[in-house]
Amino acid sequence: MNASSSTCDFETVAIAGVGLIGGSLGAAVKRRGLARRVIGVGRHPGRLAEAQQRGLIDEFERDVGRAAARADIVVICTPVDQIVSHVREARRTARPGTCLTDAGSVKGVLCTALADLATGPCVFVGAHPLAGSEKSGFEYAQAELFQGRTCVVTPLPEHDADAVARVERFWSGVGMRVVRMSPQEHDAVLACTSHAPHVVAAALAAALRDEHRAYTATGFRDTTRIASGDPTLWTGILLQNAEAVLAALDQVEQSWTAFREALQRHDAEALKSLLQTAKHRRDALNTP
Amino acid sequence: MNASSSTCDFETVAIAGVGLIGGSLGAAVKRRGLARRVIGVGRHPGRLAEAQQRGLIDEFERDVGRAAARADIVVICTPVDQIVSHVREARRTARPGTCLTDAGSVKGVLCTALADLATGPCVFVGAHPLAGSEKSGFEYAQAELFQGRTCVVTPLPEHDADAVARVERFWSGVGMRVVRMSPQEHDAVLACTSHAPHVVAAALAAALRDEHRAYTATGFRDTTRIASGDPTLWTGILLQNAEAVLAALDQVEQSWTAFREALQRHDAEALKSLLQTAKHRRDALNTP
Repeated sequence: MNASSSTCDFETVAIAGVGLIGGSLGAAVKRRGLARRVIGVGRHPGRLAEAQQRGLIDEFERDVGRAAARADIVVICTPVDQIVSHVREARRTARPGTCLTDAGSVKGVLCTALADLATGPCVFVGAHPLAGSEKSGFEYAQAELFQGRTCVVTPLPEHDADAVARVERFWSGVGMRVVRMSPQEHDAVLACTSHAPHVVAAALAAALRDEHRAYTATGFRDTTRIASGDPTLWTGILLQNAEAVLAALDQVEQSWTAFREALQRHDAEALKSLLQTAKHRRDALNTP
Repeated sequence: MNASSSTCDFETVAIAGVGLIGGSLGAAVKRRGLARRVIGVGRHPGRLAEAQQRGLIDEFERDVGRAAARADIVVICTPVDQIVSHVREARRTARPGTCLTDAGSVKGVLCTALADLATGPCVFVGAHPLAGSEKSGFEYAQAELFQGRTCVVTPLPEHDADAVARVERFWSGVGMRVVRMSPQEHDAVLACTSHAPHVVAAALAAALRDEHRAYTATGFRDTTRIASGDPTLWTGILLQNAEAVLAALDQVEQSWTAFREALQRHDAEALKSLLQTAKHRRDALNTP
C-alpha cells in the first residue's frame, strides 16, 4: 500500500484543515514530490477549490473520513480542540497501515486522549512543526514554511516504532529537523518559547492606548506582532496548556521583577547587567 | 549665514555621533539635498573615514566645538547621558543663529537641563525621531530610515518660535512627520510605546533557558528582537525615564494579570475577549 518509489514515500496524503499550516504543508509535499496526491479536507468547498487552484492541494473532500479512506498518511491541521475528534473520524475509515499525525501546538491533552492509537493497524503519532505566522488562511501559505525548522514528534513509550519512523519521515520530508520528546516535555518547553511569549505580547498590545498608537515604532510592532494571531485558536492552545503556561509566566515575572527593582533603585550596574543577559540570550538565537 | 537656495535650507549640518541614527541622518540630508555639507563628529577618525567613504558624511572632526563653529545646525546623536554636555560644547563655539537639536529617546531631563538655551543667539530644541533599530553602527545606516516616521519636537513655552520652526524644518526635511509635545508628555508616551516594551522584551529574552533555544520560532524572535539593543544605551534611556517607565510597566502588569487570572480560572470567554482586544489594538497599527 505504501508508495514503492524512492522519491514518493507516500502515495496519497490527506490534510485536514487547509489554512496557513495545512496549505503550506500541501505546497511543501507537492513541491518536494513527497506524495503523488494531496487531498485537502475542509468545510467550505469554495475555499478548497481556491486552494486547489493555487496548487496547494490536488483535490478535496468535505469529510475527513472519506479522505482518510484513500490516504497513506493523514495530517490533522485543525485547531487544537478539534484534533482528537478529527483523528477519531479519520481512524474509522482509514485502511490498515495508514498513519495519522497532527500539527497541534499542545501535545499532552491530545496524546493522552489518543494513547489507544499508539499501536494497532492505524497508529496516531503526535507532532508539532515549529513554524507558523500570526497570519491565518492558505492565502499566506508557503511551500518553504517548514524548511530547516524543528518538528517535535511526541510518541509514547508504547508506540509502534515503525509507525513513528514513518511519521518522522513525513516531517523530515517537508524539510524539517525532527526531534523527539514526551508530550509533557513538549508542553513545558513550548510554554516557555511560544505560549507564555504570546501572553506577554498580547498583554503589551492590549495595554496600548489608542492615543499612543501614532507614537509606536518598529520596536513595538515587532514585540507585539504575534498578538495579531487568531484569538479562538490561541484560547484553545493556552487553555490546553494552562498549568505549564502559568509556570512559564512565573519565570518571566521573576525576570521582569529584577528589571523593575533595578529601575526603582536607579541601579545602573544591575540594569545594565540584566540588559546584557537579555541581549546575550537574544543574540544567541541568530546563530543557531 | 543661512543657505539662500530654496533646495538647501542649511549650508552646513554637523552631526555628533555617527552611528545608526547619525549615519542615517547624514545619508538622508545628502540624498535630499537638505544641506550642502555634512560634517560628522566622533572619537575614532578611522571609523569616520569609513563613514565618509560610504557617503554618509562629507568630512569629519573629532571635536564637536570645531564642527559647530562651521555649522548652521548641529544635531547631537550621542547616547542620552552625553547629550547635555555635547550641546554645551557645541554652544560654546557656534555662531549666532546656529540651531542645536538632538535625537535622544528621553526628553525631560535634558530639556530641563538646557532650558537656558530656549532663547538667545544659539537655541537648542529637543527632538526625538521615532526611528531606529536594534542594530548599532553606521554599517546599518539607511537614508530612508526617517521617511514617513514621526519626529516628536519638545520646545518649552518660552522657546524662540523661529528657531523651533527652523529645527522642525530640518526634521521634516529628512522626511518626517513633526509633532510637538512637552518634554514630560513625550516621556510619558514613549515610556508606554518604547521604553516599557523594551523592558518586557528584555525580561522575556533574559528568561529563556539555553536548552530551550532550539525550540523558539519566529514568534519568540520577533517578540524579543529589541532586546538585542545596546545595553549601555538602554541603561541610559531607562534610568533617565525611570518613573514613567515604572508607571507604564504597571499598566502592562494590569493587562498581564487579567490574562493570568483568566488562565487560572480556565475561563475561555474572558481569555478570548482579552486576546481579541490585543489583536484589535495590534491590527490597528497596520493601518495608520
